[in-house]
Formats: sequence, structure tokens, C-alpha cells
Amino acid sequence: MLSDFHINPVSKSALDKAQAAIDIKTKPPGSLGRIEELARQICGVQNTLSPVAGPAKLLLFAADHGLVAEGVSAWPSEVTTQMVANFLGGGAAANVFARSNGVEISIIDAGIIGELGFHPDLIRANIRKGTANSMHEDAMSADELNQALEFGAALAKSAVENGNKVIALGEMGIGNTSSATLLAHAVHGMGIAELTGPGAGLDDAGVNQKIQILEKVMARKPGRLQPMDALQAYGGLEIAMMAGAIIGTASAGAIALVDGFIASAAAMCALAARPDATAYTVFAHRSKEPGHRLMMEAIGADPLIDLDLRLGEGTGALLAYPLLLNACAMINEMATFESAGVSGKET
Amino acid sequence: MLSDFHINPVSKSALDKAQAAIDIKTKPPGSLGRIEELARQICGVQNTLSPVAGPAKLLLFAADHGLVAEGVSAWPSEVTTQMVANFLGGGAAANVFARSNGVEISIIDAGIIGELGFHPDLIRANIRKGTANSMHEDAMSADELNQALEFGAALAKSAVENGNKVIALGEMGIGNTSSATLLAHAVHGMGIAELTGPGAGLDDAGVNQKIQILEKVMARKPGRLQPMDALQAYGGLEIAMMAGAIIGTASAGAIALVDGFIASAAAMCALAARPDATAYTVFAHRSKEPGHRLMMEAIGADPLIDLDLRLGEGTGALLAYPLLLNACAMINEMATFESAGVSGKET
Repeated sequence: MLSDFHINPVSKSALDKAQAAIDIKTKPPGSLGRIEELARQICGVQNTLSPVAGPAKLLLFAADHGLVAEGVSAWPSEVTTQMVANFLGGGAAANVFARSNGVEISIIDAGIIGELGFHPDLIRANIRKGTANSMHEDAMSADELNQALEFGAALAKSAVENGNKVIALGEMGIGNTSSATLLAHAVHGMGIAELTGPGAGLDDAGVNQKIQILEKVMARKPGRLQPMDALQAYGGLEIAMMAGAIIGTASAGAIALVDGFIASAAAMCALAARPDATAYTVFAHRSKEPGHRLMMEAIGADPLIDLDLRLGEGTGALLAYPLLLNACAMINEMATFESAGVSGKET
Repeated sequence: MLSDFHINPVSKSALDKAQAAIDIKTKPPGSLGRIEELARQICGVQNTLSPVAGPAKLLLFAADHGLVAEGVSAWPSEVTTQMVANFLGGGAAANVFARSNGVEISIIDAGIIGELGFHPDLIRANIRKGTANSMHEDAMSADELNQALEFGAALAKSAVENGNKVIALGEMGIGNTSSATLLAHAVHGMGIAELTGPGAGLDDAGVNQKIQILEKVMARKPGRLQPMDALQAYGGLEIAMMAGAIIGTASAGAIALVDGFIASAAAMCALAARPDATAYTVFAHRSKEPGHRLMMEAIGADPLIDLDLRLGEGTGALLAYPLLLNACAMINEMATFESAGVSGKET
């Protein structure tokens, strides 16, 4: 059960010790900004002054969405399976950035519609062949939700036990900006129209149509929902697995590096259910999808990079990952004022 | 002479070919945002569809500032020399991030006051022991300015001829936020009070005092100045060398990766004098120093990352550098829709 994944609070004393170690490095206090914050956070999570951010693994969850039948996406559902084949072939953006930044990838079939052969890099956890159409019924049953959450948590925990210090979360699923939008609406009460954007490429008319569809979907369950109820209602399976994976990563004592809009929706649900996971979570990048800004405000998060990305697949997490390596190198390798014989500020 | 460093305009056809190659990759068009822009720019500069961003070298220029005598900095001038020793010892933030991101460093004494022994990583180009105090006279003579510009250009050109594809520009010089502020004022007409910030650590009273001092300095040469006249008036030697290095890098056909506030002041002068260098220049990060935002607006630049950094030394350039590697990997390694058998958008 997900409740078996206990999360230890990060100790304030570990954070304070890290800050003290950072403040004697040869630089004006605070002058490395977010890099200092990252270093402090990783030290806190690892309860050490010698933090490490590698090896790292990207868990890339893919699944399909029944709501696509209503016309919420510019792309057909078959693209989900085709892109998973592309991931397995090594030719997608996620593969390229993973190689470029030294991150291993596992690809998880959380519920795609298409069929794929066996492949050593493919983890088969197809809970159902795409979610149900949430216009008419819950995207998944309570049992399916629990399976997805628990599998995600167990997978992340296993990756940490195998030595990974950072677990990056990414996804692929035609239609999943709709799920993310509905989740943000249901969990935090934001308006559908403010949240909705072009996803993977709708034009203005398409965005308006998407808003109308999503407003109809949410009318089936008006008002705020508990995060797990929202996940069951709106899916997707890949989002539920990512939510579980964030809890599993935190439970195992590693950093969860969250990609853009969809992965942040998973984090939103995970952190609402398990606030202690917040200290273990790093939001990698600010997505161009308009709802992401609102979601980050609701969570109180400030993503590391902002490069107008709107691809998903974990690409933003992979591009931000070197910053974690640099943050650890900073605290491990920089000289102190004393060791380097550098004078202090004039007072 | 600096005018010997001819800059070839980047061809629109090379940029268009790069864009076409990016648009058939397996991702929604434009969904990799700034990474696509970077890839296009590097392709254009190298006139290729197989761009490379490595090896890269950081040129780290250090010099002292006569204006420090007026009380513009929270730190004494001797820290410049001490920090150069720290660079040579490998313990500064720039060293750590350079190692972490696979970038080589050359440290250039462009005009520090202190004495340093010989060191294999130290390039000795001490034009004078610190600039003159610009409160009373020009920071340097026309001849010294030309020496600094030409040496910077020649050094960068040589680094490119030795195989480097990216030249990162960084600096160290107690007092140099004052020079950068005065340059932005003189070249673009921005107000001293809007531009001035804490530099390496002034408190509010210190910032107010700095504003008063800088307003007195600029009163000696009221009105707008040509960029090279401004450099001569306000320095510093490290800024002039960086300006030359940007022109030399562009002339040699490589990417100039510009660090924060001070390096951007150098770029502002270089690009005002030689607009063709703009296509070769990448602004790495948005500094926390308030004047940097104004400077970027004046140049029309949008830096890649924004991590509340205010250290200098090239640290922001080094942290942004992996994005250039990723941009090249994207165009070199990603599959196309056709090669991967992925369906297009529904129309």
C-alpha cells in the first residue's frame, strides 16, 4: 500500500549545517542564488555535507487517455505508442538529452493502447489500455489507481536502492494536458479557461474547443476534490504512477526532479497527499503551457529554468539536471575564505 | 588593430536550413523553445547542420579599479589578486563549475594591482596596475584601451583556432560593477540610480553612497558616449579585454557565451561597435544585479537562465553551457517523424 512508503522529514539541523558550509565558500554570501538553495536541499535530503547528484535515472511513464475521443488533442492516440517505440529506439528528445547529461532512462508502459514487443528498456506495467473517457465515467477504478500509485512508488524506491540519487519524472501521453488541467482545477480550484493551453499544438479554435470539453467533463464532479479522487476521476495512469514515484523517491531518501506541466500535476497530487515529500522535490522547469504558472504558484514552487519548453518526456528535467551536479560540486569542491587566504568584506 | 578582426555576417540561408532540420524532428514544432533557437544559432554560426559546442574555454579576465578608492565596493582591491590566486589553485566557483561542465579555463591578468608568480594557467597581460580613478581622469589611455581590446581579440581568436567552439567570458575585479553601471549609462543613457545595485555585497546605505559617487563620476563626461570612449573613461581593463574577446570570437567564427552584468557591459560595448558580432553572441544568464535587466532590454537579449546569480567569474556562463551541448545533440541525434515512423498532427 502507498501508506507503507513512509517519508522522513528533512531535518532543519542538516539544512542549517549545509548553509553554514556554503557561507564560508569564497564568494559573497548568497551570490550563487538558486545553486546555493539546491545544494542546501540536496544536503538536507541526504543528511550530509558531501552530497552527490549522480547517478540519476529518468522514469518516463507513457499511457493513453480515453478523453482523446472528445477531440482534446491535435494528435491521434496512436502517437503515444509510436513515441514509446521512438524512446526505445533512442531517437526522441528525452533520449538525446539523457545521453547528453549522463542520465539513464527507463520507459514504463503505464497504459498505452498499442502493442509493443519485448524490449530490455521497457517496463511493462500496462494497468489498462488507456483510461476510460472521463466525460462519461471515472478515468480509472479505485483499484487501478492504487495499482498505479503503488507501482510508481515501488519502481522509484527500487531505482534509489540501486544507487540513483536523483529520480527524474517524465511522461508521454496524447491527451494528458487535459488530465493535468482537470487535476489543477479539481485540487486547487483554478479556472479551466485560465489553465488551458495549446498542449502539443492546438490552434486558438482548438484551445477554445478544449476549454468547452473540459468544462463539460468537470461538470460531472463539480467542486474541489481530494487529490487521489481527482486522479481517479481524470487520470491518467502515467500521472498516477508519477505521483506514486514522487512519494516512493522521497520515501527512499532521494531527490524527485519534476518535469513540466503534466509531471507537476502529478507532484501537485502527491504533495497535497503527502506534504513531507515537498522537501525532496525539485521543480525543474517552467513550462510554456499557461496552467503551469498557476500550478507553481499554488504549490509555492519556483522552477529552476524557463526555456519556453512544452514537450514533456522529462526533457525539462534532463536539461535542468546538470544544475544539481553543479550544486553538489560547489559544496564539495569550493575553497573556503580561510583555506584560500581571501580577505573578507570591509566593515 | 581591432579593425583587422573582420566578422562575417551569419547567413539567413544557414539559419533557415537549420530551422527546417529542427522542424522535422519528433516533437511538436517549437516545443523545445529556447533550445531550438540555440541550435539554430549555433548552426548558423558554424554554417552546418552538424553543429558542435565543445570543446569550450572560459577566458577569465581579472583587473583592478582605481575608483575603489572612492568607496564603491564592500571588498578591498586586494581581493582581486587573492581571488586570482584562488582561480589558479582551482578552488573558486568558476573552477568547480568549469570542471563539472567540462570547460577549460584560462586566467588572464589584465591589470591587477598585486603580484603573482608564474603559473602555467596564468596569462600575463597586465596593461597597468589597475585603472586610474575615473572620478578624476579617464580610467585608461587610448593606447591602453587599444592594447586591451586587441589582446582580448587575439586571445579569443587563438583559442578558437586551437579548436574551441565556444568561448565563455568571465571576470573578476573588485569595483567592476561600478564600471559596468557607468558604461550602461554612457552607452545607452540609463539612469545611474536605476542601474546601481549591491554588487558583491553593499547594504542599502552602501548602494546609496555608490549612486552618489557614480553620479559624480559621470558628471565629468555628461551625455552619451561612443562605446570605446566610454570604455576608456570608465574601464575596466578586464571589461575592455572581454569586449575585444567577443569581437575576436565572432571574427573566428565561434560562439561567445557572455556571463552576467560585467561581461554583458563588455558585450554591450562590443556589439554597439560591431553589430555583426550579435549573431555570434549568447547571453548566458540574467544577473540579480538590477542594472542587468535594463542592459538586456537595451541590447534586445533574453538570457538563457535566471538563477539569482551575482558572482561573476563566468559562473553563469558555465552553468548555462550544457544547454549549448544539448542544443547541438538535439539537432545531431534526434529522429525525424519519417525515420521514427511517428504520425503527424491531425488536420
